[in-house]
Amino acid sequence: MVLLDLNQIAEVAGARLSNLHSDSKHSVDHASSLGSAGPGALSFYSHSRHREQLRNTRASAVLLRETDQQDCPVPALVCENPYLGMARALQALYPIEEVEHCIHESAIVDAQAQLESPVQIGAHCVIEADVRIGANSILGPNCVIEKGARLGMGCRLHPQVTIHAGTLLGDRVEVWSNTVIGSDGFGYAQEGREWVKLRHQGHVRIGDDCEIGACVSIDRGMLDDTVIGRGVKIDNQVQVAHNVEIGDHSAIAGCAGIAGSAKIGRYCQIGGAAGVQGHVTLADGVIITGMSKASQSIEESGIYSSGTAIQKNTAWLRNAARFKQLDQIARALREGDIHE
Amino acid sequence: MVLLDLNQIAEVAGARLSNLHSDSKHSVDHASSLGSAGPGALSFYSHSRHREQLRNTRASAVLLRETDQQDCPVPALVCENPYLGMARALQALYPIEEVEHCIHESAIVDAQAQLESPVQIGAHCVIEADVRIGANSILGPNCVIEKGARLGMGCRLHPQVTIHAGTLLGDRVEVWSNTVIGSDGFGYAQEGREWVKLRHQGHVRIGDDCEIGACVSIDRGMLDDTVIGRGVKIDNQVQVAHNVEIGDHSAIAGCAGIAGSAKIGRYCQIGGAAGVQGHVTLADGVIITGMSKASQSIEESGIYSSGTAIQKNTAWLRNAARFKQLDQIARALREGDIHE
Amino acid sequence: MVLLDLNQIAEVAGARLSNLHSDSKHSVDHASSLGSAGPGALSFYSHSRHREQLRNTRASAVLLRETDQQDCPVPALVCENPYLGMARALQALYPIEEVEHCIHESAIVDAQAQLESPVQIGAHCVIEADVRIGANSILGPNCVIEKGARLGMGCRLHPQVTIHAGTLLGDRVEVWSNTVIGSDGFGYAQEGREWVKLRHQGHVRIGDDCEIGACVSIDRGMLDDTVIGRGVKIDNQVQVAHNVEIGDHSAIAGCAGIAGSAKIGRYCQIGGAAGVQGHVTLADGVIITGMSKASQSIEESGIYSSGTAIQKNTAWLRNAARFKQLDQIARALREGDIHE
Repeated sequence: MVLLDLNQIAEVAGARLSNLHSDSKHSVDHASSLGSAGPGALSFYSHSRHREQLRNTRASAVLLRETDQQDCPVPALVCENPYLGMARALQALYPIEEVEHCIHESAIVDAQAQLESPVQIGAHCVIEADVRIGANSILGPNCVIEKGARLGMGCRLHPQVTIHAGTLLGDRVEVWSNTVIGSDGFGYAQEGREWVKLRHQGHVRIGDDCEIGACVSIDRGMLDDTVIGRGVKIDNQVQVAHNVEIGDHSAIAGCAGIAGSAKIGRYCQIGGAAGVQGHVTLADGVIITGMSKASQSIEESGIYSSGTAIQKNTAWLRNAARFKQLDQIARALREGDIHE
Repeated sequence: MVLLDLNQIAEVAGARLSNLHSDSKHSVDHASSLGSAGPGALSFYSHSRHREQLRNTRASAVLLRETDQQDCPVPALVCENPYLGMARALQALYPIEEVEHCIHESAIVDAQAQLESPVQIGAHCVIEADVRIGANSILGPNCVIEKGARLGMGCRLHPQVTIHAGTLLGDRVEVWSNTVIGSDGFGYAQEGREWVKLRHQGHVRIGDDCEIGACVSIDRGMLDDTVIGRGVKIDNQVQVAHNVEIGDHSAIAGCAGIAGSAKIGRYCQIGGAAGVQGHVTLADGVIITGMSKASQSIEESGIYSSGTAIQKNTAWLRNAARFKQLDQIARALREGDIHE
Repeated sequence: MVLLDLNQIAEVAGARLSNLHSDSKHSVDHASSLGSAGPGALSFYSHSRHREQLRNTRASAVLLRETDQQDCPVPALVCENPYLGMARALQALYPIEEVEHCIHESAIVDAQAQLESPVQIGAHCVIEADVRIGANSILGPNCVIEKGARLGMGCRLHPQVTIHAGTLLGDRVEVWSNTVIGSDGFGYAQEGREWVKLRHQGHVRIGDDCEIGACVSIDRGMLDDTVIGRGVKIDNQVQVAHNVEIGDHSAIAGCAGIAGSAKIGRYCQIGGAAGVQGHVTLADGVIITGMSKASQSIEESGIYSSGTAIQKNTAWLRNAARFKQLDQIARALREGDIHE
């Protein structure tokens, strides 16, 4: 357990003690939400939907914006972005343990694998020939690292991850459980009406400081590589197909699917269950809202959507039936009446 | 093999022997569909699409509604809900085996874990410190239970399940293969244009009698917990994000995604590949049809939909192009002409 | 490393040496894309988007169509379908290694399992009673094959695959990592407002020459089987529900979901993240475009779509609001003005 006084929290969080409610002698040893916080808890306030909880909180300190100080009954730490402050404070309150070199006796490590000390290899892991794993990396139980894969320094693989042959992870890449990186892409030629497989020879390259969620699949490229830039964050259940390129610091929310050879720029945000069509290119800074389909290339940053809004099924049925007539409806109007 | 006579089936299924076709001396020892049933088979009839199969069935007995008796050429068991009757009969015909205490010699069980006898721990499982597992639980091979997780009595984990640290499962929770419970949520603060991770401190709590499908991911909460009520049924490939709450006896069909902090009421049904947007609240008894997006809170029970209906691609292309003009089309009409 | 001269490549790829640029004494030992190819590389050209790369390629040989010869600065191999030619050439350049009989000492193989020599069973695999695995099959590490499952000859299971009890795979079936085949379907009867599980007794049957991606789930049937035909290709993250039938040589792209009892014909193509509703039937040769929902049966081959096209969010919001009025808009026009 880490005990930090409010000056220490202020420093890591880039905050300052409020004039209204401050007492730097207070200290915190854990984090809680405003509603469930008690003594010793650090909390944060960043959205008006929690104002009532702020007014009644029993946290020992709250990170908040200057304008919200008056609603806070306890010591306040003022910063511009309390959510970012909380991210920093959480890293200080819950530091990652130092890695002690330990290879579980049940792990199967090929004699030709190079593990840079200290690394932690969990029970029942399988590390094949010519794998290299950088120092300070941790593999949870039951991970499989196929031949020739490389993990940089400080990587963290949670249990049951599969890293296929030749995959390259940068430094400080975190991969959550049951995720698969480096499987063959979905590429077949047609011969008559049957499918002939293209054996994929490309790899997957993942940049430094990426985080990949649970149950994600990322396919290797067919001839060239699938490439994921630095600082990219990928949520659970995402599919990244062969030869996709994702630019630095983009974020892909849960259940999204990126089809083959799509190129996503830097600083993009792909919403939950959204899709990016094959061979499409998205410029830097494009945001695709949840469940939308980026069916064509987008050259300008901004927010893009498709789909329709939720409504009662009875009304929706009527409107959906009319959608099938939409071109006829439009043509029933005089062309000049439809103004762009 | 369990052999049950028709009186016994009638009792477990809440049915009565038909006057038209009954012979309680008959017995059944397995279940089959109407079309493939032969001697010894119990079958059921509940939808008119199978009427022809009913008329020609060679089952030894059929569960059906009173009004369908005359179409049944074999002994009939009459009940109000034959599908429910079949569910009960299946439980009687295929009882779960009694659990014999057995920890496979290849499993790695921490000395600080508490396993209540009898439990069955499959090959290559890893059970970390301070885990507690209740009596009559069964873990298939290659499961990983991280430190501090708790499983109630009579739980059933199929192979390759990952339960992350601190997760709490109630009694009689069944989890299918390769599912991950308790991974970090997808929460990052922005610092400039880069992402700073929030280390998640909440847990996942799952109530009694839940069933969770294969390849599902359920994230822990950021500060508070992700909470799944009693009797909730979750299909394969579902994503449940951090701090989601799902009320008792709701059902989530395959490939659905529930975004962060969404609150789903009791007795809700989320259709296949449907999405619930972050922070949205659904009242008790809301039904979202398949592939719809609940993009706003819904306060009244009922059926809700979004999207458009399937049609030939050539027609769809024209209508989809017109959708982009829909506001202009509407404005081409005089406002007063559009009646709600 | 396999070294093949251009006559050999021409033969396996069904191509002929171009008159313009041919020198059968050249040989290749690997495959590359046009842009990154160097000496010894075989490449292919099949889409005009890569014409500039063709003109500048340094590959040792390129598979292409007759009409593209003049743009190729290096020896060319002419064929009708260069992508298919490349598929065949890749199989020749990267042959599958011969299987040497090897059961890893950490694998747990039940005495009642029948493994036909030669097979390769990876570390930490678990093979239960009455399993049969055909000759020349390879199982990666950490696979679990439950009792009574059958794998044909020449099957290839990548790491961490779960095959549930009684599942039947044909010959030459390839299954990628962390995929689950044979879990219970999502079938519950309602008793009051609670769910009563139907214990599924059907199996999954998969035909010869199928390939199943990573993180896929395929449920067993309730009473009858879930059936996947010959030569079917299934991409990553796909959900196939109970009692689905998929006809020979159909292909299902990533993240698609096929709901219970749907019947997909032969030679169908289901696009990425598309959905097929329960009990729907698709005729042979139906193509569903990405993210569309096949909400009703389709009796005629062809391409089908639903959804709307991507646009700027500001415009989309206006149009999506109007969609809710679409029936009113249509009724504001005189019925006779809307011509089908």
